[in-house]
Amino acid sequence: MICSISSAQFAGGMRGQKEEPLPEGFKPASTNTFISQYPAVNAQTRQAMFRVVAPAAQVVQVDLAGKKYDMTKDEKGVWTCISDPQVVGFHYYAILIDSVPVMDRNTEAYFGSNWESSGIEIPEGPEGNYYRFNKTIPHGQIRSIHYWSEVNGIERHINVYIPAEYEKNPDKKYPVLYLVHGWGEDENGWSVQGHMANIMDGLIESGKAVPMIVVMPSGDIKTNSDVRQASGNITDIYINDLIPFIDKTFRTFTDKQHRAMAGLSRGGFQTCMTVFNNMDKFAWMGTFSGFFIRRNEGIETAFNGIFKDADAFNKQINLMFISTGTEERNPREIVEALKTHGIGNIIFHESQGTAHEWLTWRRALNDFAPRLFK
Amino acid sequence: MICSISSAQFAGGMRGQKEEPLPEGFKPASTNTFISQYPAVNAQTRQAMFRVVAPAAQVVQVDLAGKKYDMTKDEKGVWTCISDPQVVGFHYYAILIDSVPVMDRNTEAYFGSNWESSGIEIPEGPEGNYYRFNKTIPHGQIRSIHYWSEVNGIERHINVYIPAEYEKNPDKKYPVLYLVHGWGEDENGWSVQGHMANIMDGLIESGKAVPMIVVMPSGDIKTNSDVRQASGNITDIYINDLIPFIDKTFRTFTDKQHRAMAGLSRGGFQTCMTVFNNMDKFAWMGTFSGFFIRRNEGIETAFNGIFKDADAFNKQINLMFISTGTEERNPREIVEALKTHGIGNIIFHESQGTAHEWLTWRRALNDFAPRLFK
Repeated sequence: MICSISSAQFAGGMRGQKEEPLPEGFKPASTNTFISQYPAVNAQTRQAMFRVVAPAAQVVQVDLAGKKYDMTKDEKGVWTCISDPQVVGFHYYAILIDSVPVMDRNTEAYFGSNWESSGIEIPEGPEGNYYRFNKTIPHGQIRSIHYWSEVNGIERHINVYIPAEYEKNPDKKYPVLYLVHGWGEDENGWSVQGHMANIMDGLIESGKAVPMIVVMPSGDIKTNSDVRQASGNITDIYINDLIPFIDKTFRTFTDKQHRAMAGLSRGGFQTCMTVFNNMDKFAWMGTFSGFFIRRNEGIETAFNGIFKDADAFNKQINLMFISTGTEERNPREIVEALKTHGIGNIIFHESQGTAHEWLTWRRALNDFAPRLFK
Repeated sequence: MICSISSAQFAGGMRGQKEEPLPEGFKPASTNTFISQYPAVNAQTRQAMFRVVAPAAQVVQVDLAGKKYDMTKDEKGVWTCISDPQVVGFHYYAILIDSVPVMDRNTEAYFGSNWESSGIEIPEGPEGNYYRFNKTIPHGQIRSIHYWSEVNGIERHINVYIPAEYEKNPDKKYPVLYLVHGWGEDENGWSVQGHMANIMDGLIESGKAVPMIVVMPSGDIKTNSDVRQASGNITDIYINDLIPFIDKTFRTFTDKQHRAMAGLSRGGFQTCMTVFNNMDKFAWMGTFSGFFIRRNEGIETAFNGIFKDADAFNKQINLMFISTGTEERNPREIVEALKTHGIGNIIFHESQGTAHEWLTWRRALNDFAPRLFK
């Protein structure tokens, strides 16, 4: 298509002229659109360099990982800045043009904080291979599906990861993991920001994880009629809409021993609310950066008393995987208290040196998925 | 996730307060994020109303369908404007904040003109049902797949539409349509902006089109090493990478009678270049808003003389579908000349009242697909 915006105005100034070479050590980020040289990343220093064309703007800043960087304008109206060193993995960011937070035109769009945000991937060394595309192994497929939700009275969009072997085994049934994103993200978070297909492909090919279907719905109620929906309704969608649709559409085992649910941040809370209220339907669960008990509650009363009878809980849940980054609010004390109380099937996973961010959750999935359905 | 940008700054001002009611007759556009009231559309007048929160900006405009609209600021720093009546269907647009074209935070991201752009859908009456989700019929799936391209030395992303019946017929083979987007768009254009799955679901369910696989690749060479790639390389990718991968991955017929290619705008040109140079591999083709002959060439010399021997051409190509909107550059004269010259298998399709835009291409696909593989 041809848009009416004149080429000369394109942020990044990519049309009709070759870019000047990037500073030594910097390469275009993998999160950029395919024509964009910026933002650029220095893999050694883990710094990011940003570039915005805005001759008429008064102040341009970059808002990245909790810090606002003032950009400097050159004589052509091109603004640039270089960030502090970043944690490896994916980070959302925004450009502020005269105080209005907008997306950087140079990156692909990543839905977070309820808008199509900019994102940047800080590359990792060989340690990060588990979440990168591996051309030497078979690949599953992410299926993009719209289905009709009677609960909402609208079509809802989900992504479903199907393991590479699925179509070669037309009579085989598979267990299902339901995997939820965090607040302000959507059903694309795990497959795009999380690289979950690369992680699952590797785990399954190496035999560490059993082949499974992974269903990724939207944790928000998609509707324009309300500004902000509570998450309570999600359980209703799972139980009455989504699980029946998945079991009808794919070759699944439908008993609780073959069904798991996990989520990050608010999705971890949604996992607790859904699993604890439907213990006949799930036997495995994970909360990544999302497991907390309210201040005024103890273990015996939390989640309507689900932990009160530890033996009863242990008989129903094979695995309660609780994960956190070491640089964010840490549920370690609650986990210890639960263990002391007799909850015996907890795995506590800490991601070293990471906060409330995607590297924490990629690592969590990589540790969690091999423990399922065994 | 929790982004560092403070809630109060969110464009659209959606946090912590209910919006004022929309003006009478206006509803949130279907292209918005699920929490955004704006842009709003009046289905009767086909006008769009936009809203941007930018207290510190000097000038804010909306750039839509070739016209820039000045927005008006109220005492809270909220800018609004109402557009002229628009053609129904999907339109890209941009917000200009102090002359910098940026994405409106209120809409989902739609890749066009080589950036993640804002988009707005102007609703149509019952005539538009063919491209809407129909909850009463079976639905195909869009499969999101990364495969390794030896031609490029990178992984490439494609979307593949698989008809609803595919998994119920494990021994059946299917014909394949390769379907390409336009300049500045990407492999998501047809499934997101074009609603191709809804169109194909309806055509197949009604028996108008035969069940087929539709492969949607990126028409650009995804690489950060060059600012702008020529499209010539696309043919190489099709012939040496993509077609072998598809025929290995899915149950396809692999002869030319069961393979078609079509594209919009530049994708139409790419279709001509690929099909005319590989007449042993395709028997059906379509160009939507993308068929032209250079000024200094006639029919006998165009495309390296492919039309010179009309009988030879007619024996090799079952269908050359040429489509255009009536409000854009029209190839009618060339089509007439080709027919006069003896090219006998042309269907010429005109979309009434539309220009170089998605309604033209939705209509074209809806007319083209039923003619294939019969």
